[in-house]
Amino acid sequence: MSGAESPPDEFGQIARLFRPLTRGAPEALDLLDDAAVIPSRPGFDLVVTKDALVAGVHFQPGEPPGRTAQRLLRANLSDLAAKGAEPYGYFLMTAWPADFGWAQREAFAEGLRADGEAFNLCLLGGDTVSIKGPLTLSMTLLGWTPSGAMVRRAGAQVGDLVMVSGAIGDGWLDWGVAAGQLDRRWLGADHRLPNPRLDLREPLRRLATSAADVSDGLIADAGHIARASKVGLRLDLDRMPISDAAAAWLATQADPAGARLRLATGGDDYELVLTAPPAAAQALGLPVIGEVVAGEGVEVRFAGARLDPGPGGWRHA
Amino acid sequence: MSGAESPPDEFGQIARLFRPLTRGAPEALDLLDDAAVIPSRPGFDLVVTKDALVAGVHFQPGEPPGRTAQRLLRANLSDLAAKGAEPYGYFLMTAWPADFGWAQREAFAEGLRADGEAFNLCLLGGDTVSIKGPLTLSMTLLGWTPSGAMVRRAGAQVGDLVMVSGAIGDGWLDWGVAAGQLDRRWLGADHRLPNPRLDLREPLRRLATSAADVSDGLIADAGHIARASKVGLRLDLDRMPISDAAAAWLATQADPAGARLRLATGGDDYELVLTAPPAAAQALGLPVIGEVVAGEGVEVRFAGARLDPGPGGWRHA
Repeated sequence: MSGAESPPDEFGQIARLFRPLTRGAPEALDLLDDAAVIPSRPGFDLVVTKDALVAGVHFQPGEPPGRTAQRLLRANLSDLAAKGAEPYGYFLMTAWPADFGWAQREAFAEGLRADGEAFNLCLLGGDTVSIKGPLTLSMTLLGWTPSGAMVRRAGAQVGDLVMVSGAIGDGWLDWGVAAGQLDRRWLGADHRLPNPRLDLREPLRRLATSAADVSDGLIADAGHIARASKVGLRLDLDRMPISDAAAAWLATQADPAGARLRLATGGDDYELVLTAPPAAAQALGLPVIGEVVAGEGVEVRFAGARLDPGPGGWRHA
Repeated sequence: MSGAESPPDEFGQIARLFRPLTRGAPEALDLLDDAAVIPSRPGFDLVVTKDALVAGVHFQPGEPPGRTAQRLLRANLSDLAAKGAEPYGYFLMTAWPADFGWAQREAFAEGLRADGEAFNLCLLGGDTVSIKGPLTLSMTLLGWTPSGAMVRRAGAQVGDLVMVSGAIGDGWLDWGVAAGQLDRRWLGADHRLPNPRLDLREPLRRLATSAADVSDGLIADAGHIARASKVGLRLDLDRMPISDAAAAWLATQADPAGARLRLATGGDDYELVLTAPPAAAQALGLPVIGEVVAGEGVEVRFAGARLDPGPGGWRHA
């Protein structure tokens, strides 16, 4: 397929790019309608999350389109994973710039196709528009939980332990390498795509009192739990699990406290931060990094001293 | 509130602009979570539609933000109206340019507040991002129908009559005035916002075999029905209802067939085009403008002659 091929008309684009992504789901009505219809599923709640990506803000404009598509889908899936939800389907808004050609659109759809298969997700509907500006994408992702079983940000109780599901900070390292600010040797093993922790959804629903995915940064996302739960969280960065790559980078840093803080505020880790009472935490078997206390906000410690994490863990303004 | 006031941080924006729009809906979790949870409603289907607006493509960048918000909501509501669905709630993605200041964001939210009240809709969730480009908006709107009762584009049967719910062409006249291409005297009565025909949802569900809202243009939207239903539609523009303003404009036109074709391809009318068997059509009591025939596509006639409507009725590329 030549990069110079001009796009077909709107119906052609829908037929060639998007209809295969429905994977025959009857709810999508072959994308011949402008609505999808979702039958009731008694005994289950529908969990809905929405995330947007804008070129030049959330990803480099030159990123391969298939990778952008997969990051969009997986960032949304990570939100669902934190809820303990089973992925179901998605709605997609694409605002294409004129110079985002047919071959790029096909590569974008191919990324969605691959991950739709991998995560057993179907496209349910959407809207395709043009934009005199950057590639802009918005996804509404749907999942199911048994009725009343969604894990929320609200729910952490004083006395709960705080855990994370895996290494924190590789998202920041990868971003630093991609932005040319860090040496390539610090890159995570596979310059990885988000790996949403959907594997944890059953124990999460059974044992956790609250959860959030680590997308804004560990400290910021812990703060989301603190705010929604009306409690304080105390985190100990000595106990924060990190990858071998992050450990090697840390060993080169003159200010270990500041360096750990960077890993804990960088974001895009797509692990989960969660809380559970001590017995449930033991059953979960995940690394414990702190506890829930009365009060508000997130208190951060390292090597016995309090650190000031600054106004949050936000990479994007 | 001064136009120069700088926006609060993300949490402040959510609290001040968006939380009031949830109108206390428990599903929205006070927007403190990054998901909404929708309990099952046995006996009902959830109908989901998605529409995007981009400044400079779908609306003039200088349009008052409250009006843009209302048009976004109402265009989506018009999709739901065509399905015979009862509006329920919405998810919103806003990509704000840096120069879309706090006062404009407040005006945008005020438009949503007013129409949320008017149409009994609650904000359920969303995502707010920044963009180095035009104001870009995407809405996912949810509604309910009794199980299996959604009116589709597919369903028109040979022998059905084709009807519209009201005057066609005022959307095009209003657009022409706003774009400076038509004299202001041709403006519809109130330079109107879309008025979604939700009032028709019960008879529509009971009597119509198919429906679409007239957003792309009568002929294009009739084409959507033809394509999805695998039939042909024959429309007679002599029978197309028009407003007094459109009739006055038509009287000034040298080419009445071409002028009617413009009204029928302009779009943004937000009336409904629908099909029903003759007895049901009589019960509906709406203006009949044609019939469903074997074949495909839309055949257009005026004053006894066939017209060529061109490649569709699309205003936006």
